[in-house]
Amino acid sequence: MLPRITLLATGGTIASQQTDQGLMPMTAADGILDLMPSLRQLARLSARDVFMLDSSNIQPEEWQLLAQAVSQAAQEADGIVISHGTDTMAYSASALSFMLPGIRIPVVFTGSQLPLTHPHSDAPGNLREAFAMALSGRAGVYIAFQHKVIYGTRAVKMRTLGFDAFDSINLPPVGFFDADGLHLDDRADEPCEPPGDIGDPTAIDARVFLLKMMPGTNPEIFDHILSAGYRGLVLEAFGLGGLHYIRRNLIDKLQTISRAGIITLVTTQCLYEKADFTIYEVGKGFQAGGIYGAHDMTTEAAVTKLMWALGDLPRRQHLLVRCLAHEMRVKG
Amino acid sequence: MLPRITLLATGGTIASQQTDQGLMPMTAADGILDLMPSLRQLARLSARDVFMLDSSNIQPEEWQLLAQAVSQAAQEADGIVISHGTDTMAYSASALSFMLPGIRIPVVFTGSQLPLTHPHSDAPGNLREAFAMALSGRAGVYIAFQHKVIYGTRAVKMRTLGFDAFDSINLPPVGFFDADGLHLDDRADEPCEPPGDIGDPTAIDARVFLLKMMPGTNPEIFDHILSAGYRGLVLEAFGLGGLHYIRRNLIDKLQTISRAGIITLVTTQCLYEKADFTIYEVGKGFQAGGIYGAHDMTTEAAVTKLMWALGDLPRRQHLLVRCLAHEMRVKG
Repeated sequence: MLPRITLLATGGTIASQQTDQGLMPMTAADGILDLMPSLRQLARLSARDVFMLDSSNIQPEEWQLLAQAVSQAAQEADGIVISHGTDTMAYSASALSFMLPGIRIPVVFTGSQLPLTHPHSDAPGNLREAFAMALSGRAGVYIAFQHKVIYGTRAVKMRTLGFDAFDSINLPPVGFFDADGLHLDDRADEPCEPPGDIGDPTAIDARVFLLKMMPGTNPEIFDHILSAGYRGLVLEAFGLGGLHYIRRNLIDKLQTISRAGIITLVTTQCLYEKADFTIYEVGKGFQAGGIYGAHDMTTEAAVTKLMWALGDLPRRQHLLVRCLAHEMRVKG
Repeated sequence: MLPRITLLATGGTIASQQTDQGLMPMTAADGILDLMPSLRQLARLSARDVFMLDSSNIQPEEWQLLAQAVSQAAQEADGIVISHGTDTMAYSASALSFMLPGIRIPVVFTGSQLPLTHPHSDAPGNLREAFAMALSGRAGVYIAFQHKVIYGTRAVKMRTLGFDAFDSINLPPVGFFDADGLHLDDRADEPCEPPGDIGDPTAIDARVFLLKMMPGTNPEIFDHILSAGYRGLVLEAFGLGGLHYIRRNLIDKLQTISRAGIITLVTTQCLYEKADFTIYEVGKGFQAGGIYGAHDMTTEAAVTKLMWALGDLPRRQHLLVRCLAHEMRVKG
């Protein structure tokens, strides 16, 4: 018997067709499978439309719908492929990595830079590779795109037009494809612990502000974050974690919002390598609680992990400094 | 007679020494030259301390001090080297590219990941290469770092620890070093026009907000940007320029702040390739003025160019869509 793979379709360029209004996602899950008849040689296929959106419109509410759809499909499938727009795929894949902590099958996002129906489309190749990864038996949430398989928490969209749209940041890809098929890396990753009692794993809280620093960032934004009801802040600092404090004192403001209960993850606007917020502990007597270094997490992982932690903070706050889904190396 | 090179020192890791409070910038410009005696074989050297700061503390006010110091030094020098921390070097180099539009000599930023006094420091090599570029006679603002020379408007700090800290984004480096010395590319870049009547070129306005999108960004931030007195917005959108508009309608809000006179540059959070805001003009009937696509500009270039444009908007607004300092390719 062939294994069972379920395609969950969500829209995106891969499902788009040309209209008077520009490209619009219109091809349903069944339509995608109809255009890829060779996949039926590999697996017993089923298909479901979860929603039909340009991925710029996919938000935390959609992540919850998608996580529920995966959990349901996983009861009967050996692997799941999710077709998705590229613009926010890295956020969705990272969010689902945290929201599906015990997933026992491969859940593989893919999409394309050109619609499946376009004569030069990258969609057929990406779909074939996503199905191959879904058939691999390796549990977890991944993105398969242009011959690479990347952990959901490690992917970043790097290119707006190039077919090689995603890179794996601060960790090598999990696998790659060549003419000999899929080669999965069997290295020992940072061990990820089972998260313990986390309540409903799909509970998240979107009240997070993402603040990317620039020279001259006005400290008033911290007052606003506090008064507007945000519960979390992801701060893209300079270098290892730098913030200015002369004339515009952001470090004072960060301590203030921290004392008021806002949880902050400090990451870096450098794409590669780690943030290290301990430079403040040493240099500036920084002692406020609720401020965590994001280590080598991507911003996409930091945003989704913080939203997820805020979904049940009493049970999950301590997990902000642990590796749950290959999203960070705490040491080194 | 040897050519004349002036070193302008601003602090940074390159000038730092270990203290009880962590690394602190302490080595003055004369001290840097004393540690690099071989440079005196190449040029008649002079040195000036402009300020002594960790570059996380360098803000628009410091860019103005630095631009004035460059203009003054340029009256007597054949080239200028600026030693600077790495954290915000790409912002400073980009800002000075716009603030020194008619500069007739090389102005070359450099720095290091380890202090000049550290036994494994990358500072001696970076200083030698910056001086070589300053001796090249090629006018403009550059970063020389780890064997590469990059336009000031094209540099991004990519790595928090690696010696190869800067990449040239969306345009190849201007030059590179090997055992045979400096090799400058003589390709024809995008032609950059003289900007015409721009008033005092060092006038800038720092009232810019940098907003990096995430799925679920709350539209209320646009109301805040409007009420808090910002004059400009750099928006790091998804992919080619995507913003969500279902449930949380950011496109409506963008039109609102635009009608109220805020100038917006829309860039992409993808590191490589261009943003293309015309997707909105086609798809969503987007007609508000004062919203510009940043094409393939880096965020560092977009932030500094917008601050510079706001410094004299009547004379400079039309330059937001022109290439001034190799910061963008408008076509293609």
